[in-house]
Amino acid sequence: MSDNTTWHYENFEPSGSAIGYRITKKLDEVQSPFQKIEIFESTDWGNLMLIDGAMMLTTRDNFLYHEMMSHPALFTHANPKSVVIIGGGDCGTLREVLKHPGVEKAVQCDIDEQVTRMAEKWFPELCDSNDDPRAELLFDDGIAYMANCAPNSLDIVIVDSTDPVGPAEGLFNKAFFESCFRALKDDGILVQQSESPLVLLELIKAMRAEMGKAGFSTFQTLPFPQPCYPTGWWSCTMARKGQGFDFREADARAKAFATKYYTADIHKGAASLPPFVAEALGE
Amino acid sequence: MSDNTTWHYENFEPSGSAIGYRITKKLDEVQSPFQKIEIFESTDWGNLMLIDGAMMLTTRDNFLYHEMMSHPALFTHANPKSVVIIGGGDCGTLREVLKHPGVEKAVQCDIDEQVTRMAEKWFPELCDSNDDPRAELLFDDGIAYMANCAPNSLDIVIVDSTDPVGPAEGLFNKAFFESCFRALKDDGILVQQSESPLVLLELIKAMRAEMGKAGFSTFQTLPFPQPCYPTGWWSCTMARKGQGFDFREADARAKAFATKYYTADIHKGAASLPPFVAEALGE
Repeated sequence: MSDNTTWHYENFEPSGSAIGYRITKKLDEVQSPFQKIEIFESTDWGNLMLIDGAMMLTTRDNFLYHEMMSHPALFTHANPKSVVIIGGGDCGTLREVLKHPGVEKAVQCDIDEQVTRMAEKWFPELCDSNDDPRAELLFDDGIAYMANCAPNSLDIVIVDSTDPVGPAEGLFNKAFFESCFRALKDDGILVQQSESPLVLLELIKAMRAEMGKAGFSTFQTLPFPQPCYPTGWWSCTMARKGQGFDFREADARAKAFATKYYTADIHKGAASLPPFVAEALGE
Repeated sequence: MSDNTTWHYENFEPSGSAIGYRITKKLDEVQSPFQKIEIFESTDWGNLMLIDGAMMLTTRDNFLYHEMMSHPALFTHANPKSVVIIGGGDCGTLREVLKHPGVEKAVQCDIDEQVTRMAEKWFPELCDSNDDPRAELLFDDGIAYMANCAPNSLDIVIVDSTDPVGPAEGLFNKAFFESCFRALKDDGILVQQSESPLVLLELIKAMRAEMGKAGFSTFQTLPFPQPCYPTGWWSCTMARKGQGFDFREADARAKAFATKYYTADIHKGAASLPPFVAEALGE
């Protein structure tokens, strides 16, 4: 390695653990009205995006998160046509959603346009589908957007947010989940990134409780590896109004698009929680 | 948090990434003839053991590694009675192996007695089964031990080693694997910890190649989360002489002992590799 590399660490206070990367230089920085966005070049992980000092994504490993935030829900809903992504400004989740040919419309609503501008510049591969005629990119308050959505109009809402502090705090409570519940059709599915299943089980429980107060009755938490997030183990949680999650396994096996992590078997494996997680969640 | 906490980081050069923990104090330290062993107290992860500066285990998350190093192999072999663990001085893998009532003898051979002494003191729960009459704890050179094993005498060999540098370097090459091959019965299984499936695929490939040169013909790499190791995603690799790994799924489902991570479904999920891993390994 050249001598001008440095190590950048992120201390994650709630877990008492840290992650870090060997970086070569800062490529870009912008202070938006909402947050500070920084782009670093790393020796082994491609480019890194940090928001207010917290790692958001790397070129190398973002596929894990983006695939798991989208495909499990889209292969669980019987026929998803209308999808809304709250947050997700890096456009990676949008790209995965639009791989499903049945999707007729996918709205991405991120409060911070600068996240998307930085993604276009430093993670252009994630923005491959931004010009898809089915895609609509909004830069607006996701809480207000969901509150104003027509009732019973959506099949899937994906909350691809930062941690529940700062701008994203309002995306983890009953009021927001009520808006999602109202906007979703009866067979609709809500997906929320739900932090580390190893150390933040209390957060997942609290989030499920808020979803429950909003009317959702069935939950499924799917763990997956994500090296650039604290502990390297992350999760998404699906919620729906009715009972059960009927995985369209045959369709997942026959999918006509490529994925790097997601498969029908990975989906099934993730859906079967380790005993210590299931126990903590009361399953 | 009290003001006397500090953050301890471990830079992992091969992956250009780091992990870290918030620690309160150093509890113990010993320089053995082989390596430096340190014990820290952490705010959130219990006690930590570091060997030559590399994180070996934490009280909180070691169950992931120990369960995945043992149960997949023990539920794949048709009737494992004789098990040898090379390394594994913290005794956590031994404890898991001895949960299987069919095991008649389990030898743990770690070159460094001090690892076990430190485990007895700071991770006593991992040493619960050290007095089991089926257990034999040796403090000797694992390479020599395997070279001197009677041919066709073992059902399972588990190589629970540190990274392939320093004392453990000789546990990743053809000569050592030949000894394992010779000592294993025809239906025997070799298990080796095989580093991170995200960033160290080349190492896994090289290791499989060495195993192949030693005579092993079938391989299965199982990924699992392990926050205290670089990237938080780790793996073990099983190798055997014959074809195929016949998972005793019904027995795994009916197991009479408790696990925190391992289940039959987790086993099946891990055995189905993500496409990017399968592709890199030529599967």
